[in-house]
Amino acid sequence: MAYDFLKGHGTENDFVLLPDLDGELTAERARALCDRHAGIGADGVLRVARASPPEAEWFMDYRNADGSPSEMCGNGIRVFVRYLVDAGLADATAPIAVDTRDGVKVLTVDGDLITADMGTPKVLGETTVAVGGVTHAARHVETGNPHAVAFVSSLDEAGALLEAPTHDPAVYPDGVNVEFVVRRGERHIAMRVHERGSGETRSCGTGACAAMVATAVAAGDRPDDADVAYRVDVPGGTLTVTWTTDDRVLLTGPAVLVAWGQTDL
Amino acid sequence: MAYDFLKGHGTENDFVLLPDLDGELTAERARALCDRHAGIGADGVLRVARASPPEAEWFMDYRNADGSPSEMCGNGIRVFVRYLVDAGLADATAPIAVDTRDGVKVLTVDGDLITADMGTPKVLGETTVAVGGVTHAARHVETGNPHAVAFVSSLDEAGALLEAPTHDPAVYPDGVNVEFVVRRGERHIAMRVHERGSGETRSCGTGACAAMVATAVAAGDRPDDADVAYRVDVPGGTLTVTWTTDDRVLLTGPAVLVAWGQTDL
Repeated sequence: MAYDFLKGHGTENDFVLLPDLDGELTAERARALCDRHAGIGADGVLRVARASPPEAEWFMDYRNADGSPSEMCGNGIRVFVRYLVDAGLADATAPIAVDTRDGVKVLTVDGDLITADMGTPKVLGETTVAVGGVTHAARHVETGNPHAVAFVSSLDEAGALLEAPTHDPAVYPDGVNVEFVVRRGERHIAMRVHERGSGETRSCGTGACAAMVATAVAAGDRPDDADVAYRVDVPGGTLTVTWTTDDRVLLTGPAVLVAWGQTDL
Repeated sequence: MAYDFLKGHGTENDFVLLPDLDGELTAERARALCDRHAGIGADGVLRVARASPPEAEWFMDYRNADGSPSEMCGNGIRVFVRYLVDAGLADATAPIAVDTRDGVKVLTVDGDLITADMGTPKVLGETTVAVGGVTHAARHVETGNPHAVAFVSSLDEAGALLEAPTHDPAVYPDGVNVEFVVRRGERHIAMRVHERGSGETRSCGTGACAAMVATAVAAGDRPDDADVAYRVDVPGGTLTVTWTTDDRVLLTGPAVLVAWGQTDL
Protein backbone atom coordinates (compact mmCIF):
# COMPACT_ATOMS: atom_id res chain seq x y z
CA MET A 1 0.00 0.00 0.00
CA ALA A 2 1.96 2.99 -1.28
CA TYR A 3 1.61 6.48 0.15
CA ASP A 4 3.09 9.90 -0.58
CA PHE A 5 6.32 11.21 0.93
CA LEU A 6 8.81 14.01 0.43
CA LYS A 7 12.41 14.34 1.58
CA GLY A 8 13.98 17.63 2.59
CA HIS A 9 16.53 19.20 4.90
CA GLY A 10 17.46 22.37 6.78
CA THR A 11 21.26 22.72 6.97
CA GLU A 12 21.45 18.95 6.40
CA ASN A 13 19.19 18.07 9.33
CA ASP A 14 17.02 15.84 7.13
CA PHE A 15 13.43 14.68 7.26
CA VAL A 16 10.91 12.47 5.56
CA LEU A 17 7.69 14.48 5.31
CA LEU A 18 4.32 12.72 5.05
CA PRO A 19 1.46 14.82 3.61
CA ASP A 20 -0.94 12.35 5.23
CA LEU A 21 -3.42 14.85 6.65
CA ASP A 22 -5.80 12.42 8.29
CA GLY A 23 -3.57 9.41 8.94
CA GLU A 24 -1.32 8.51 11.81
CA LEU A 25 2.39 8.00 12.27
CA THR A 26 3.43 4.99 14.31
CA ALA A 27 6.84 4.59 15.91
CA GLU A 28 7.43 1.50 13.75
CA ARG A 29 6.74 3.37 10.52
CA ALA A 30 8.94 6.29 11.58
CA ARG A 31 11.83 3.88 12.22
CA ALA A 32 11.30 2.13 8.87
CA LEU A 33 11.22 5.41 6.94
CA CYS A 34 14.30 6.82 8.73
CA ASP A 35 16.43 3.66 8.30
CA ARG A 36 19.31 4.91 6.16
CA HIS A 37 19.83 1.59 4.35
CA ALA A 38 16.57 -0.39 4.36
CA GLY A 39 14.38 2.74 4.25
CA ILE A 40 14.56 6.25 2.81
CA GLY A 41 16.75 7.65 5.57
CA ALA A 42 16.33 10.75 7.73
CA ASP A 43 16.86 12.23 11.19
CA GLY A 44 13.09 12.24 11.73
CA VAL A 45 9.61 12.15 10.21
CA LEU A 46 7.25 15.14 9.93
CA ARG A 47 3.60 14.27 9.35
CA VAL A 48 1.40 17.12 8.09
CA ALA A 49 -1.82 16.96 10.11
CA ARG A 50 -4.81 19.25 10.46
CA ALA A 51 -4.94 21.59 13.47
CA SER A 52 -7.75 23.76 14.88
CA PRO A 53 -8.15 27.13 13.15
CA PRO A 54 -7.98 29.99 13.72
CA GLU A 55 -5.00 29.41 16.03
CA ALA A 56 -3.22 27.28 13.42
CA GLU A 57 -4.32 25.39 10.35
CA TRP A 58 -1.59 22.74 10.49
CA PHE A 59 -0.11 20.50 13.16
CA MET A 60 3.43 19.10 12.90
CA ASP A 61 3.33 15.47 14.08
CA TYR A 62 7.04 14.80 14.63
CA ARG A 63 8.92 11.61 15.47
CA ASN A 64 12.66 11.04 15.79
CA ALA A 65 14.53 8.37 13.81
CA ASP A 66 14.22 6.01 16.78
CA GLY A 67 10.43 6.31 16.66
CA SER A 68 10.03 8.46 19.76
CA PRO A 69 7.65 11.45 19.51
CA SER A 70 9.24 14.87 19.92
CA GLU A 71 7.75 18.19 20.90
CA MET A 72 9.50 20.45 18.45
CA CYS A 73 12.34 20.66 15.94
CA GLY A 74 13.64 24.02 14.73
CA ASN A 75 14.98 22.73 11.42
CA GLY A 76 12.10 20.31 10.95
CA ILE A 77 9.43 22.99 11.31
CA ARG A 78 11.22 25.12 8.71
CA VAL A 79 11.17 22.18 6.25
CA PHE A 80 7.51 21.65 7.21
CA VAL A 81 6.69 25.26 6.24
CA ARG A 82 8.68 24.95 3.00
CA TYR A 83 6.30 22.13 2.10
CA LEU A 84 3.16 24.08 3.12
CA VAL A 85 4.20 26.99 0.92
CA ASP A 86 5.29 24.86 -2.06
CA ALA A 87 2.05 22.85 -1.89
CA GLY A 88 -0.09 25.99 -1.75
CA LEU A 89 -1.31 25.16 1.76
CA ALA A 90 0.05 28.39 3.30
CA ASP A 91 0.67 31.96 2.13
CA ALA A 92 4.36 32.91 2.18
CA THR A 93 3.64 36.65 2.31
CA ALA A 94 2.23 36.52 5.87
CA PRO A 95 3.38 34.86 9.11
CA ILE A 96 2.46 31.14 9.19
CA ALA A 97 1.25 29.54 12.43
CA VAL A 98 2.05 25.83 12.97
CA ASP A 99 0.82 23.86 15.96
CA THR A 100 3.29 21.45 17.62
CA ARG A 101 3.39 19.36 20.80
CA ASP A 102 5.24 22.37 22.26
CA GLY A 103 2.42 24.77 21.27
CA VAL A 104 1.84 27.06 18.30
CA LYS A 105 4.94 28.38 16.51
CA VAL A 106 5.03 31.30 14.05
CA LEU A 107 7.26 31.23 10.96
CA THR A 108 8.07 33.70 8.21
CA VAL A 109 9.36 33.05 4.69
CA ASP A 110 11.86 35.27 2.86
CA GLY A 111 12.83 33.62 -0.41
CA ASP A 112 15.17 30.70 0.34
CA LEU A 113 15.24 31.50 4.05
CA ILE A 114 12.65 30.49 6.61
CA THR A 115 12.59 31.89 10.15
CA ALA A 116 11.04 30.11 13.12
CA ASP A 117 10.17 31.96 16.32
CA MET A 118 11.54 29.53 18.89
CA GLY A 119 10.10 31.34 21.92
CA THR A 120 11.76 32.63 25.08
CA PRO A 121 14.99 30.89 26.11
CA LYS A 122 15.61 29.91 29.71
CA VAL A 123 19.16 30.69 30.81
CA LEU A 124 19.87 28.38 33.74
CA GLY A 125 22.93 27.43 35.78
CA GLU A 126 26.39 26.04 35.20
CA THR A 127 26.93 22.30 34.87
CA THR A 128 29.49 19.93 33.37
CA VAL A 129 29.59 17.39 30.56
CA ALA A 130 32.32 14.90 29.74
CA VAL A 131 33.37 13.27 26.50
CA GLY A 132 36.45 11.23 25.67
CA GLY A 133 37.47 11.34 29.32
CA VAL A 134 37.61 15.16 29.41
CA THR A 135 35.20 17.21 31.55
CA HIS A 136 33.95 20.53 30.19
CA ALA A 137 32.13 23.34 31.98
CA ALA A 138 28.77 23.94 30.31
CA ARG A 139 25.85 26.36 30.48
CA HIS A 140 22.38 24.92 30.93
CA VAL A 141 19.97 26.57 28.47
CA GLU A 142 16.41 25.47 27.63
CA THR A 143 15.09 26.32 24.17
CA GLY A 144 12.07 24.02 23.95
CA ASN A 145 14.34 21.15 25.03
CA PRO A 146 17.32 20.87 27.37
CA HIS A 147 20.83 21.84 26.26
CA ALA A 148 24.31 21.93 27.73
CA VAL A 149 26.58 24.39 25.90
CA ALA A 150 30.32 23.86 26.36
CA PHE A 151 32.91 26.31 25.03
CA VAL A 152 36.00 24.63 23.62
CA SER A 153 39.15 25.94 21.97
CA SER A 154 38.72 23.63 18.98
CA LEU A 155 35.75 21.58 17.69
CA ASP A 156 38.12 18.60 17.56
CA GLU A 157 38.02 18.57 21.37
CA ALA A 158 34.65 16.86 21.21
CA GLY A 159 36.40 13.83 19.71
CA ALA A 160 34.49 11.52 17.42
CA LEU A 161 31.27 12.01 19.44
CA LEU A 162 30.48 8.36 18.79
CA GLU A 163 29.03 8.09 22.27
CA ALA A 164 26.79 10.47 24.15
CA PRO A 165 28.68 12.89 26.39
CA THR A 166 27.97 12.17 30.04
CA HIS A 167 25.89 14.71 31.99
CA ASP A 168 24.54 15.34 35.50
CA PRO A 169 21.28 13.35 35.75
CA ALA A 170 20.10 15.63 38.57
CA VAL A 171 20.20 18.57 36.14
CA TYR A 172 18.96 16.64 33.09
CA PRO A 173 16.71 13.78 34.25
CA ASP A 174 15.46 13.22 30.65
CA GLY A 175 18.86 13.50 28.98
CA VAL A 176 20.37 16.46 27.19
CA ASN A 177 21.58 17.73 23.84
CA VAL A 178 25.19 18.87 24.09
CA GLU A 179 26.72 21.66 21.99
CA PHE A 180 30.47 22.21 21.67
CA VAL A 181 31.08 25.80 20.62
CA VAL A 182 34.01 27.87 19.38
CA ARG A 183 34.00 31.63 18.79
CA ARG A 184 34.87 32.52 15.20
CA GLY A 185 34.54 36.32 15.31
CA GLU A 186 32.21 39.09 16.37
CA ARG A 187 28.74 37.58 16.79
CA HIS A 188 29.94 34.53 14.89
CA ILE A 189 30.31 31.03 16.37
CA ALA A 190 30.68 27.46 15.10
CA MET A 191 29.40 24.32 16.83
CA ARG A 192 29.06 20.56 16.82
CA VAL A 193 26.11 18.89 18.49
CA HIS A 194 25.25 15.53 20.03
CA GLU A 195 21.48 14.99 20.17
CA ARG A 196 19.93 12.53 22.61
CA GLY A 197 18.42 9.66 20.61
CA SER A 198 20.21 10.62 17.38
CA GLY A 199 23.94 10.93 18.08
CA GLU A 200 26.01 13.61 16.36
CA THR A 201 23.96 15.39 13.70
CA ARG A 202 24.77 17.86 10.94
CA SER A 203 22.62 20.54 12.57
CA CYS A 204 20.22 21.14 15.48
CA GLY A 205 17.93 24.17 15.46
CA THR A 206 17.23 24.41 19.18
CA GLY A 207 20.92 23.68 19.77
CA ALA A 208 21.99 26.60 17.58
CA CYS A 209 19.65 28.84 19.58
CA ALA A 210 21.02 27.55 22.89
CA ALA A 211 24.61 28.02 21.70
CA MET A 212 23.90 31.58 20.59
CA VAL A 213 22.18 32.50 23.86
CA ALA A 214 24.95 30.98 26.00
CA THR A 215 27.57 32.85 23.97
CA ALA A 216 25.73 36.16 24.18
CA VAL A 217 25.25 35.75 27.95
CA ALA A 218 28.95 34.93 28.44
CA ALA A 219 29.90 38.01 26.38
CA GLY A 220 27.49 40.37 28.17
CA ASP A 221 25.80 40.83 24.79
CA ARG A 222 22.13 40.59 25.79
CA PRO A 223 19.37 42.29 23.72
CA ASP A 224 18.72 45.10 26.21
CA ASP A 225 18.35 47.90 23.66
CA ALA A 226 18.36 46.21 20.26
CA ASP A 227 18.00 42.73 18.76
CA VAL A 228 21.25 40.72 18.76
CA ALA A 229 21.94 38.45 15.75
CA TYR A 230 24.69 35.80 15.57
CA ARG A 231 25.90 33.70 12.69
CA VAL A 232 26.05 30.05 13.80
CA ASP A 233 28.05 27.64 11.61
CA VAL A 234 26.97 24.00 11.96
CA PRO A 235 28.52 21.04 10.09
CA GLY A 236 25.63 21.14 7.56
CA GLY A 237 25.58 24.85 6.80
CA THR A 238 24.95 28.25 8.31
CA LEU A 239 22.10 29.52 10.48
CA THR A 240 21.34 32.93 11.91
CA VAL A 241 19.99 33.20 15.45
CA THR A 242 18.45 36.48 16.59
CA TRP A 243 17.69 37.22 20.25
CA THR A 244 15.06 39.95 20.29
CA THR A 245 14.44 42.78 22.74
CA ASP A 246 11.20 41.05 23.76
CA ASP A 247 13.31 38.01 24.80
CA ARG A 248 12.55 35.58 21.98
CA VAL A 249 14.96 33.66 19.73
CA LEU A 250 14.44 33.52 15.98
CA LEU A 251 16.09 30.74 13.94
CA THR A 252 16.74 31.62 10.29
CA GLY A 253 18.17 29.41 7.56
CA PRO A 254 17.55 27.53 4.32
CA ALA A 255 15.00 24.71 4.03
CA VAL A 256 14.77 22.68 0.84
CA LEU A 257 12.81 19.73 -0.53
CA VAL A 258 14.99 17.44 -2.67
CA ALA A 259 12.73 14.48 -3.55
CA TRP A 260 9.05 13.52 -3.58
CA GLY A 261 7.14 10.40 -4.53
CA GLN A 262 5.60 7.27 -3.07
CA THR A 263 6.81 4.57 -0.70
CA ASP A 264 5.38 1.35 0.68
CA LEU A 265 7.56 1.23 3.80
CA MET B 1 14.61 20.23 -13.50
CA ALA B 2 13.10 17.16 -11.85
CA TYR B 3 13.76 13.62 -13.03
CA ASP B 4 12.64 10.14 -11.99
CA PHE B 5 14.37 8.01 -9.36
CA LEU B 6 13.76 4.91 -7.29
CA LYS B 7 15.40 3.73 -4.08
CA GLY B 8 15.99 0.08 -3.26
CA HIS B 9 18.35 -2.29 -1.51
CA GLY B 10 19.72 -5.84 -1.47
CA THR B 11 20.45 -6.95 2.11
CA GLU B 12 20.64 -3.23 3.00
CA ASN B 13 23.27 -2.42 0.39
CA ASP B 14 21.22 0.50 -0.93
CA PHE B 15 21.00 2.30 -4.25
CA VAL B 16 19.36 5.18 -6.02
CA LEU B 17 18.21 3.89 -9.41
CA LEU B 18 17.74 6.27 -12.34
CA PRO B 19 15.49 5.02 -15.16
CA ASP B 20 17.14 7.60 -17.40
CA LEU B 21 17.62 5.43 -20.47
CA ASP B 22 19.29 8.00 -22.71
CA GLY B 23 20.86 10.39 -20.20
CA GLU B 24 24.17 10.37 -18.44
CA LEU B 25 25.32 10.08 -14.85
CA THR B 26 28.05 12.47 -13.76
CA ALA B 27 30.23 11.96 -10.70
CA GLU B 28 28.82 15.17 -9.23
CA ARG B 29 25.22 14.00 -9.58
CA ALA B 30 26.04 10.58 -8.10
CA ARG B 31 27.59 12.27 -5.06
CA ALA B 32 24.59 14.60 -4.63
CA LEU B 33 22.08 11.74 -4.86
CA CYS B 34 24.05 9.51 -2.46
CA ASP B 35 24.57 12.22 0.18
CA ARG B 36 22.72 10.81 3.19
CA HIS B 37 21.69 14.22 4.58
CA ALA B 38 21.56 16.76 1.74
CA GLY B 39 20.49 14.15 -0.86
CA ILE B 40 18.46 10.94 -0.97
CA GLY B 41 21.23 8.74 0.40
CA ALA B 42 22.66 5.47 -0.91
CA ASP B 43 25.81 3.38 -1.31
CA GLY B 44 25.72 4.00 -5.06
CA VAL B 45 23.69 4.99 -8.13
CA LEU B 46 22.48 2.59 -10.83
CA ARG B 47 21.49 4.23 -14.11
CA VAL B 48 19.39 2.09 -16.45
CA ALA B 49 20.84 2.54 -19.93
CA ARG B 50 20.25 0.83 -23.26
CA ALA B 51 22.70 -1.89 -24.35
CA SER B 52 23.19 -3.66 -27.67
CA PRO B 53 20.80 -6.57 -28.27
CA PRO B 54 20.85 -9.46 -28.67
CA GLU B 55 23.68 -9.86 -26.13
CA ALA B 56 21.85 -7.72 -23.56
CA GLU B 57 19.05 -5.19 -23.72
CA TRP B 58 20.13 -3.16 -20.70
CA PHE B 59 23.39 -1.72 -19.43
CA MET B 60 23.99 -0.99 -15.73
CA ASP B 61 25.80 2.36 -15.48
CA TYR B 62 27.05 2.22 -11.89
CA ARG B 63 28.79 4.82 -9.72
CA ASN B 64 29.81 4.60 -6.07
CA ALA B 65 28.70 7.15 -3.46
CA ASP B 66 31.99 9.03 -3.95
CA GLY B 67 31.20 9.47 -7.66
CA SER B 68 33.72 6.98 -9.00
CA PRO B 69 32.52 4.56 -11.71
CA SER B 70 32.53 0.89 -10.80
CA GLU B 71 32.60 -2.20 -12.95
CA MET B 72 30.09 -4.33 -11.13
CA CYS B 73 28.09 -4.68 -7.94
CA GLY B 74 26.48 -7.99 -6.98
CA ASN B 75 23.73 -6.47 -4.83
CA GLY B 76 23.26 -3.51 -7.15
CA ILE B 77 22.68 -5.64 -10.23
CA ARG B 78 20.04 -7.64 -8.33
CA VAL B 79 18.21 -4.38 -7.44
CA PHE B 80 18.65 -3.33 -11.08
CA VAL B 81 16.91 -6.52 -12.27
CA ARG B 82 14.14 -6.08 -9.66
CA TYR B 83 13.41 -2.75 -11.35
CA LEU B 84 13.53 -4.20 -14.88
CA VAL B 85 11.01 -6.88 -13.92
CA ASP B 86 8.71 -4.54 -11.95
CA ALA B 87 8.75 -2.00 -14.78
CA GLY B 88 7.93 -4.66 -17.38
CA LEU B 89 11.29 -4.18 -19.13
CA ALA B 90 12.38 -7.79 -18.60
CA ASP B 91 10.66 -11.19 -18.36
CA ALA B 92 11.13 -12.81 -14.94
CA THR B 93 10.41 -16.32 -16.27
CA ALA B 94 13.66 -16.48 -18.29
CA PRO B 95 17.31 -15.63 -17.55
CA ILE B 96 17.95 -11.87 -17.87
CA ALA B 97 21.20 -10.59 -19.41
CA VAL B 98 22.55 -7.24 -18.15
CA ASP B 99 25.61 -5.58 -19.60
CA THR B 100 28.07 -3.98 -17.16
CA ARG B 101 31.57 -2.48 -17.35
CA ASP B 102 32.70 -5.99 -16.31
CA GLY B 103 30.85 -7.62 -19.22
CA VAL B 104 27.43 -9.25 -19.58
CA LYS B 105 25.96 -10.84 -16.45
CA VAL B 106 23.04 -13.28 -16.34
CA LEU B 107 20.42 -13.15 -13.57
CA THR B 108 17.42 -15.26 -12.65
CA VAL B 109 14.35 -14.32 -10.62
CA ASP B 110 12.54 -16.65 -8.21
CA GLY B 111 9.86 -14.68 -6.36
CA ASP B 112 11.52 -12.45 -3.77
CA LEU B 113 14.97 -13.84 -4.55
CA ILE B 114 17.21 -12.78 -7.40
CA THR B 115 20.37 -14.68 -8.36
CA ALA B 116 23.33 -13.14 -10.15
CA ASP B 117 25.94 -15.28 -11.91
CA MET B 118 29.12 -13.60 -10.66
CA GLY B 119 31.47 -15.55 -12.93
CA THR B 120 34.53 -17.64 -12.14
CA PRO B 121 36.38 -16.75 -8.92
CA LYS B 122 40.16 -16.49 -8.86
CA VAL B 123 41.63 -18.10 -5.77
CA LEU B 124 45.04 -16.51 -5.26
CA GLY B 125 47.67 -16.49 -2.54
CA GLU B 126 47.93 -15.75 1.14
CA THR B 127 48.44 -12.17 2.32
CA THR B 128 47.86 -10.12 5.47
CA VAL B 129 45.64 -7.22 6.50
CA ALA B 130 45.78 -5.20 9.71
CA VAL B 131 43.13 -3.29 11.59
CA GLY B 132 43.22 -1.77 15.07
CA GLY B 133 46.90 -2.68 15.33
CA VAL B 134 46.25 -6.40 14.84
CA THR B 135 47.53 -8.28 11.77
CA HIS B 136 45.36 -11.03 10.29
CA ALA B 137 46.27 -13.70 7.73
CA ALA B 138 44.00 -13.36 4.70
CA ARG B 139 43.22 -15.18 1.46
CA HIS B 140 43.39 -13.19 -1.76
CA VAL B 141 40.29 -13.89 -3.88
CA GLU B 142 39.14 -12.01 -6.98
CA THR B 143 35.41 -12.02 -7.76
CA GLY B 144 35.17 -9.17 -10.25
CA ASN B 145 37.13 -7.01 -7.80
CA PRO B 146 39.93 -7.70 -5.33
CA HIS B 147 39.21 -9.13 -1.88
CA ALA B 148 41.17 -10.13 1.21
CA VAL B 149 39.29 -12.66 3.35
CA ALA B 150 40.44 -12.94 6.97
CA PHE B 151 39.09 -15.59 9.35
CA VAL B 152 38.53 -14.31 12.88
CA SER B 153 37.19 -15.91 16.04
CA SER B 154 34.67 -13.10 16.55
CA LEU B 155 33.35 -10.36 14.27
CA ASP B 156 34.17 -7.88 17.05
CA GLU B 157 37.85 -8.47 16.25
CA ALA B 158 37.50 -6.13 13.28
CA GLY B 159 36.91 -3.30 15.74
CA ALA B 160 34.83 -0.35 14.70
CA LEU B 161 36.19 -0.51 11.12
CA LEU B 162 36.14 3.27 11.06
CA GLU B 163 39.34 3.24 9.04
CA ALA B 164 40.34 1.06 6.15
CA PRO B 165 42.34 -2.02 7.14
CA THR B 166 45.90 -1.79 5.87
CA HIS B 167 46.97 -4.14 3.08
CA ASP B 168 50.02 -5.08 1.02
CA PRO B 169 50.14 -2.57 -1.88
CA ALA B 170 52.23 -5.01 -3.92
CA VAL B 171 49.32 -7.48 -3.83
CA TYR B 172 46.55 -4.88 -4.15
CA PRO B 173 47.87 -1.86 -6.09
CA ASP B 174 44.30 -0.48 -6.53
CA GLY B 175 43.17 -1.13 -2.95
CA VAL B 176 41.10 -3.99 -1.63
CA ASN B 177 37.80 -4.90 -0.02
CA VAL B 178 38.39 -6.75 3.24
CA GLU B 179 36.05 -9.40 4.67
CA PHE B 180 36.24 -10.60 8.28
CA VAL B 181 34.63 -14.02 8.50
CA VAL B 182 33.50 -16.39 11.24
CA ARG B 183 32.21 -19.92 10.75
CA ARG B 184 28.70 -20.37 12.14
CA GLY B 185 28.01 -23.99 11.21
CA GLU B 186 28.12 -26.40 8.31
CA ARG B 187 28.28 -24.35 5.10
CA HIS B 188 27.20 -21.31 7.10
CA ILE B 189 29.38 -18.24 7.72
CA ALA B 190 28.91 -14.64 8.91
CA MET B 191 30.97 -11.64 7.83
CA ARG B 192 31.66 -7.94 8.11
CA VAL B 193 33.11 -6.03 5.19
CA HIS B 194 35.12 -2.86 4.61
CA GLU B 195 34.77 -1.63 1.02
CA ARG B 196 37.36 0.65 -0.56
CA GLY B 197 35.75 4.04 -1.17
CA SER B 198 32.71 3.30 1.03
CA GLY B 199 33.93 2.15 4.46
CA GLU B 200 32.07 -0.56 6.36
CA THR B 201 28.82 -1.45 4.60
CA ARG B 202 25.79 -3.56 5.52
CA SER B 203 26.51 -5.99 2.69
CA CYS B 204 28.81 -6.58 -0.28
CA GLY B 205 27.86 -9.07 -2.97
CA THR B 206 31.29 -9.78 -4.41
CA GLY B 207 32.59 -9.87 -0.83
CA ALA B 208 30.07 -12.55 0.16
CA CYS B 209 31.21 -14.59 -2.85
CA ALA B 210 34.88 -14.14 -1.95
CA ALA B 211 34.21 -15.09 1.68
CA MET B 212 32.34 -18.23 0.63
CA VAL B 213 35.05 -19.32 -1.81
CA ALA B 214 37.85 -18.73 0.70
CA THR B 215 35.94 -20.71 3.33
CA ALA B 216 35.21 -23.60 0.98
CA VAL B 217 38.86 -23.72 -0.13
CA ALA B 218 40.08 -23.70 3.48
CA ALA B 219 37.64 -26.52 4.31
CA GLY B 220 38.54 -28.63 1.27
CA ASP B 221 34.91 -28.21 0.20
CA ARG B 222 35.37 -27.44 -3.51
CA PRO B 223 32.58 -28.24 -6.05
CA ASP B 224 34.34 -31.20 -7.60
CA ASP B 225 31.28 -33.44 -7.91
CA ALA B 226 28.33 -31.26 -7.00
CA ASP B 227 27.47 -27.57 -6.49
CA VAL B 228 28.38 -26.27 -3.03
CA ALA B 229 26.02 -23.70 -1.42
CA TYR B 230 26.80 -21.64 1.69
CA ARG B 231 24.61 -19.38 3.75
CA VAL B 232 26.40 -16.05 4.25
CA ASP B 233 25.08 -13.75 7.00
CA VAL B 234 25.93 -10.09 6.46
CA PRO B 235 24.96 -7.22 8.80
CA GLY B 236 22.04 -6.33 6.48
CA GLY B 237 20.55 -9.80 5.98
CA THR B 238 21.27 -13.22 4.54
CA LEU B 239 22.67 -14.25 1.16
CA THR B 240 23.27 -17.65 -0.38
CA VAL B 241 26.42 -18.21 -2.42
CA THR B 242 26.64 -21.28 -4.65
CA TRP B 243 29.93 -22.44 -6.21
CA THR B 244 29.03 -24.58 -9.19
CA THR B 245 30.74 -27.60 -10.72
CA ASP B 246 31.54 -25.46 -13.76
CA ASP B 247 33.48 -23.09 -11.46
CA ARG B 248 31.09 -20.14 -11.26
CA VAL B 249 29.67 -18.38 -8.18
CA LEU B 250 25.98 -17.54 -7.95
CA LEU B 251 24.82 -14.85 -5.51
CA THR B 252 21.22 -15.24 -4.32
CA GLY B 253 19.23 -12.92 -2.07
CA PRO B 254 16.36 -10.47 -1.75
CA ALA B 255 16.21 -7.21 -3.71
CA VAL B 256 13.47 -4.69 -2.99
CA LEU B 257 12.38 -1.24 -4.15
CA VAL B 258 11.12 0.90 -1.27
CA ALA B 259 10.45 4.35 -2.81
CA TRP B 260 10.00 5.97 -6.21
CA GLY B 261 9.37 9.51 -7.38
CA GLN B 262 11.14 12.61 -8.66
CA THR B 263 14.14 14.61 -7.53
CA ASP B 264 15.87 17.79 -8.67
CA LEU B 265 19.25 16.98 -7.13
